[in-house]
Amino acid sequence: MTYNTPQGFSFAVAEAAIKKPGRKDLALITSEKEAIVSALFTTNAIKAAPVLVDIKRARSGIGRAIIVNSGNANACTGPQGLRDAEEMAALVANALGLRPSEVYVCSTGVIGAPMPMDRIRAAIKPLVLSLTNGTLHNVAEAIMTTDTFAKVSTRVIEIEGKKATISAIAKGAGMICPNMATMLCFILTDIAVTKKALDRALKDAVQCSFNSITIDGDMSTNDTVLAFANGMAQNRPIEYRGKDYETFCNCLSEICLELAKMIVKDGEGATKFITIDVINAKDNSDAKMAAYCIANSMLVKTALYGNDANWGRIMAALGYAGVSLKADRVDISINGIEIAHHGLTTGRDAEAQHSMAGSSDIHLMVDLNLGRAKGRVFTCDLTEGYVKVNAEYRT
Amino acid sequence: MTYNTPQGFSFAVAEAAIKKPGRKDLALITSEKEAIVSALFTTNAIKAAPVLVDIKRARSGIGRAIIVNSGNANACTGPQGLRDAEEMAALVANALGLRPSEVYVCSTGVIGAPMPMDRIRAAIKPLVLSLTNGTLHNVAEAIMTTDTFAKVSTRVIEIEGKKATISAIAKGAGMICPNMATMLCFILTDIAVTKKALDRALKDAVQCSFNSITIDGDMSTNDTVLAFANGMAQNRPIEYRGKDYETFCNCLSEICLELAKMIVKDGEGATKFITIDVINAKDNSDAKMAAYCIANSMLVKTALYGNDANWGRIMAALGYAGVSLKADRVDISINGIEIAHHGLTTGRDAEAQHSMAGSSDIHLMVDLNLGRAKGRVFTCDLTEGYVKVNAEYRT
Repeated sequence: MTYNTPQGFSFAVAEAAIKKPGRKDLALITSEKEAIVSALFTTNAIKAAPVLVDIKRARSGIGRAIIVNSGNANACTGPQGLRDAEEMAALVANALGLRPSEVYVCSTGVIGAPMPMDRIRAAIKPLVLSLTNGTLHNVAEAIMTTDTFAKVSTRVIEIEGKKATISAIAKGAGMICPNMATMLCFILTDIAVTKKALDRALKDAVQCSFNSITIDGDMSTNDTVLAFANGMAQNRPIEYRGKDYETFCNCLSEICLELAKMIVKDGEGATKFITIDVINAKDNSDAKMAAYCIANSMLVKTALYGNDANWGRIMAALGYAGVSLKADRVDISINGIEIAHHGLTTGRDAEAQHSMAGSSDIHLMVDLNLGRAKGRVFTCDLTEGYVKVNAEYRT
Repeated sequence: MTYNTPQGFSFAVAEAAIKKPGRKDLALITSEKEAIVSALFTTNAIKAAPVLVDIKRARSGIGRAIIVNSGNANACTGPQGLRDAEEMAALVANALGLRPSEVYVCSTGVIGAPMPMDRIRAAIKPLVLSLTNGTLHNVAEAIMTTDTFAKVSTRVIEIEGKKATISAIAKGAGMICPNMATMLCFILTDIAVTKKALDRALKDAVQCSFNSITIDGDMSTNDTVLAFANGMAQNRPIEYRGKDYETFCNCLSEICLELAKMIVKDGEGATKFITIDVINAKDNSDAKMAAYCIANSMLVKTALYGNDANWGRIMAALGYAGVSLKADRVDISINGIEIAHHGLTTGRDAEAQHSMAGSSDIHLMVDLNLGRAKGRVFTCDLTEGYVKVNAEYRT
């Protein structure tokens, strides 16, 4: 597949034998010019070594390259893990004539296993040499773990009459939960944008996308979103606020949402994509918390899998969400069919069931009828497939 | 099966056609003499009608009977549900010549469906008439929903040289989580005990048993523990504190723990019983929260199912538990085999895997090496069986 990719970025992938033979597991992205960098990381207290390294890097607000591997998360690997992550950056920097501080490092895969540095060392030089041959799509494939398809989103926008491109890739699949996920996302653009504007736009875009999805409620140690803006479209740098900022911001949000939805659709074992809207909550945090509690309930997730319009389980989840709630005001509908009105059955379960059975896209709407706030979360169902994948992941 | 049951209690079961034909779904327990009653209820904000009724009843601290049905939870049923629960009590009270306020009501089963009162009404009179024929074990069977075996525990103890009996039954299976469960538990004893002593002993016993188990993290709308002490052993009433109190308390705790463990062993689809100990935490609430986060992690639960000593997932769960934590101090062992030391792999995964594969009883120990507090939680693995049961529960 070919995509428009922003000017000045190059890509390479390699087999470093971290994963099974025949699978690409090492990838490199470089920018011809120094890029403005914004980053967001997991809020898990246990952070993988590359996350710790990148947090430090991101303080500078600039960067030139991303080296990323799949198959090993380099998490829970102690001081040696930190040295390994630093070494990966240094090897790339050395081969490309960059400073190590300009090279970001990401890893995804098994937690707790030492990095196979011999193999990574051996693979980095050929990786750098192949930089002109790779595509963004190749990189998206190389960072897959239990993902079943590569996730790429790209948009061309016009700023000051100049065409510019934003492209992004992501990986997800499991350990996907509030505050990002076992998720890596790299956003690349040739738009010129100030650091402040990029920071704000990224934060907003992530809030309604990667921070609004959950697959299993498990938050990863490695979640990272990196945005590189190298300015090669030569527009006057977009400042925070104003029309250009809005255009940029909307575009970034669209891309992130598209990728977030792909991650949910590719949830381990998932057969249904579920949008949960909680409306008329007392405040925004109540709305989102309620949506998350429903989304993470194993009983709700299995009911959705079974096409069971089991609104009682939704009520039970609301009941332990710790949000302001009046049972006799709650309305619940599935795919537009109201199954509970003011906390009581409407007798339309069979109708809802029929609608669910015919669709892999379920819309669950919960109206708390208390206030004016709303929240939306995307999730998937819980199936035997999820259990199977995760009972066998390491073996 | 026969059990020693405390003096003065009678039992009856009936088919009210709430569940499938051929299954008992209505049961009655009565006490010949007025009993001291202690009760604990779900902390879910959505409480089933019978729970609301019993909360009111329990304020009196006395009782004579329990009417309980399975197949319908009488939850999310609004004012009609409350009227139905009150009517069930009134019908029993009327037939037995009691005050309705002396009759407690419990329900378990599907949430959100109206109670089939016609059938319940018709079944209550014959139920009362059969009071001499039933056993505690019959009642334990009649309250089963997706449970696969009846849960009964009984102990005979000596107080002041007099033999007395405590017997208890419970049902569980799904929606089992912190602060009790889709769980009903009835504790009956002929020991004489003051209200204060019974309250305290019950609270302690439940804390380390029913409030220390989780199957799926879903908290039910119907959880109820009722303890009836009718004093027919004719000992001087046990007061709070002292040797007799301790004997009673230990016995009650043992019984609750035994039932709680049965509930976990009978968790929907469960193949493994897992004890999670978190030790040397900063404080008790940290210890229990960490244990619960591990216990409720779908990734940990599926790994345990797959005999995968995947301590990285345990670390990740600790990382989002929100507890005081130093990654480089954490030791983790499974069945006594240390798989992580000071946050790093010990290389003994295969050994642990082997031990897990040979056992349905897994002991997971997490040493935070931070303080002196500890917490224990019991849980089970997550299997295709859980998904299957819950995707099909209502159909």
